[in-house]
Amino acid sequence: MTQTASSQSTTEASQDGHKPDAAAAVEAIAVRSRNAARRMARANRAWKDKALREIAESLVAKRDVVLQANRQDLDEGKVNGTSAALLDRLTLDSKRIDGLAAALENLAALPDPVGTVMRGQTLPNGLRLRQVHVPMGVVAAIYEARPNVTVDIAGLALKSGNAVILRGGSAARHTNVALLGIIRDALDRVGLPADAVQSVDEYGRDGANALMRARGLVDVLIPRGGRELIQSVVNNAKVPVIETGEGNVHIYLDESAGTEMAVDILLNAKTQRPSVCNTVETLLVHRDAAASADVLAALAGAGVRLHVDQRVAGILPSGVQATAATDEDWAREYMDLDLAVAMVDSMDDALRHIRTWTTGHTEAIITNDLRNAERFIAEIDSAAVIVNASTRFTDGGELGLGAEVGISTQKMHARGPMGLRELTTTKWIVQGDGQVRD
Amino acid sequence: MTQTASSQSTTEASQDGHKPDAAAAVEAIAVRSRNAARRMARANRAWKDKALREIAESLVAKRDVVLQANRQDLDEGKVNGTSAALLDRLTLDSKRIDGLAAALENLAALPDPVGTVMRGQTLPNGLRLRQVHVPMGVVAAIYEARPNVTVDIAGLALKSGNAVILRGGSAARHTNVALLGIIRDALDRVGLPADAVQSVDEYGRDGANALMRARGLVDVLIPRGGRELIQSVVNNAKVPVIETGEGNVHIYLDESAGTEMAVDILLNAKTQRPSVCNTVETLLVHRDAAASADVLAALAGAGVRLHVDQRVAGILPSGVQATAATDEDWAREYMDLDLAVAMVDSMDDALRHIRTWTTGHTEAIITNDLRNAERFIAEIDSAAVIVNASTRFTDGGELGLGAEVGISTQKMHARGPMGLRELTTTKWIVQGDGQVRD
Repeated sequence: MTQTASSQSTTEASQDGHKPDAAAAVEAIAVRSRNAARRMARANRAWKDKALREIAESLVAKRDVVLQANRQDLDEGKVNGTSAALLDRLTLDSKRIDGLAAALENLAALPDPVGTVMRGQTLPNGLRLRQVHVPMGVVAAIYEARPNVTVDIAGLALKSGNAVILRGGSAARHTNVALLGIIRDALDRVGLPADAVQSVDEYGRDGANALMRARGLVDVLIPRGGRELIQSVVNNAKVPVIETGEGNVHIYLDESAGTEMAVDILLNAKTQRPSVCNTVETLLVHRDAAASADVLAALAGAGVRLHVDQRVAGILPSGVQATAATDEDWAREYMDLDLAVAMVDSMDDALRHIRTWTTGHTEAIITNDLRNAERFIAEIDSAAVIVNASTRFTDGGELGLGAEVGISTQKMHARGPMGLRELTTTKWIVQGDGQVRD
Repeated sequence: MTQTASSQSTTEASQDGHKPDAAAAVEAIAVRSRNAARRMARANRAWKDKALREIAESLVAKRDVVLQANRQDLDEGKVNGTSAALLDRLTLDSKRIDGLAAALENLAALPDPVGTVMRGQTLPNGLRLRQVHVPMGVVAAIYEARPNVTVDIAGLALKSGNAVILRGGSAARHTNVALLGIIRDALDRVGLPADAVQSVDEYGRDGANALMRARGLVDVLIPRGGRELIQSVVNNAKVPVIETGEGNVHIYLDESAGTEMAVDILLNAKTQRPSVCNTVETLLVHRDAAASADVLAALAGAGVRLHVDQRVAGILPSGVQATAATDEDWAREYMDLDLAVAMVDSMDDALRHIRTWTTGHTEAIITNDLRNAERFIAEIDSAAVIVNASTRFTDGGELGLGAEVGISTQKMHARGPMGLRELTTTKWIVQGDGQVRD
């Protein structure tokens, strides 16, 4: 009956060989998670950092175990006809494991958000008041076939004093079992509860659904992955969700924009890493923007496929190819070397286009006109508004948050890049010496 | 075809005499709300305060219109057999209208949360960064037959730069139409959009349901009312909700508690205003707490009906009556002069009882023991943790927030008393001079 920390204890029913009801199994996991969360909330920073470093060392030491499990997933994936792109995301190698360990070391070096006093005062009646950051409690994450997310989210949740329940993609299941075992054993060794990191993977889709409906048991659910996954979670969840990621990012090239800056920023925003959410997807050029032709030529020269409206087609430099844009292009997050380009007559038109098509992630203006910059900042209603810089800066690391949980495109709780603080809530602490209300 | 601001423009279908589809009508209202929200977000504090004062003056000036509409609701209520308690909540009189106007004046005197910089820095690459509070956008509220909430929520939403969509109880519909007309006319007079305050009342339950499902159109929905209303909204809403109000509040009487302080706090927490959410509902007494008998005698003397476990029954002072408590009593929010009382052997037992039955609103300890106070603060996972003071202090006004939107019992976005700041979100503003990512 003894169990190592690495194997999650399962319900009796499953030990008999019967698959228990997923909802009941997930509830049992969540109850264990709640108990573990209480212990994590009281662990001080030094203890949590020790756990993160223990996990990092263990990942490196048990590299072979992880790589072997990963090869098993890759072999099964090939047999099942998994796409090359998915297989690539699924693949861990020695360097990626070193990267995961290094990320955990970085996390250990970051300040602890727990215990930070958000505000406080002494009231006229002598009550001492403070609003303090405390862990959320039980964090859940549903993600796809990138096993690095397993380590990443577990590390972020632990550092912020939470317990976490994971649901990874079935394509990565052997790798995730190996990673989970390493993490749980490490927690056990430093005296923190192994159940602070659990998985519902063995219950498949039913497990994921039960997790989404575990109201009162899960404090926050974070979906990480493509649009379809995120929308499915947002639509089906009964627990609080933080919506992340979708970025139909716009850059508006104002009539006053200088050519050199415009070319630099557009090339960076589109080509530096086209597959991520903060890459630009639509360029709006003012009809009098002198920089337009050079920008289009530079983008085409860098291999960007342009999807343009009729008026932009009329100003294309000779030799630059483009296809005609439709409404689909304005809506689309290409996440590839494609860019939609439209011409506008005014900032009003630019703002209207953005309002119509934005996902509220990031929008930028390139301008030398102060009034236009101010107006763009005031009127754009997105998580990040950028003046004269690349949209690629909408990133927790770049904005100085240290670590990134994801990029929230919702308005409640967190908006834009989320750091450790966004995995906490607050608690009012009121201390008196007998005060009562009149 | 001309319309005064006081009458919301309705869809063409309804002008033909056909009731349009509630979902379509609510969508049209939400689109107008979004447009109004854009204008509200750009209004500075002076302008918003002018609107609040204009509404306050107008309420007083048009007092008779409101009272007449209110009498109509009361008359219909009596015909329909509405309970006396509901009729009382529904009733406005001249003094209550003065109170509403005064609350708006107070709101005008409060600082504007919009534009407050939450954090900011200049990055090593020269990017200037700030995270600024901005309005949520479209706030929705579903509430019951208290017409004061119409003015209250509208004022809070306007002050924080939002537009608001209201769904009041049908029992107050004439009063709400009158109040809405006064608010919208006042907005119009000061040059702010009347559509910043709209109602879906004419679409009845279908309107309320459509509002709950208006994903992407409503930024946050706040239910205000009893447990049933709040649970129905939480369970059915597809838009982000802030759960408010339920308070199964505990006080733990530690073995070291002094009698005088214990009596004062318990009497205040139970009898000062028993019908509200921050009133105490369960008292846990340590088996060695010397203050217990005096506390129970004082409560009984103040007319509190005690529901006690067997061990508490054994220490009841002579002449004090009590009924036997069941699990229902531990779970129940009486909101009346009733109190459940249990005896515990240790703080462990007290914490376990609270964990089992709490709604996460407020818990207090009465103690003279530093270690016990610290442990209670650390381990209680509720919006407010109070040491040696009445639980009645969990209130926006008392905690210095100025105005109160409600008391959040959830962990996401806001926890505990919510002020104006909790009706805002944030926006990252990034300003550079051509920065790109390496």
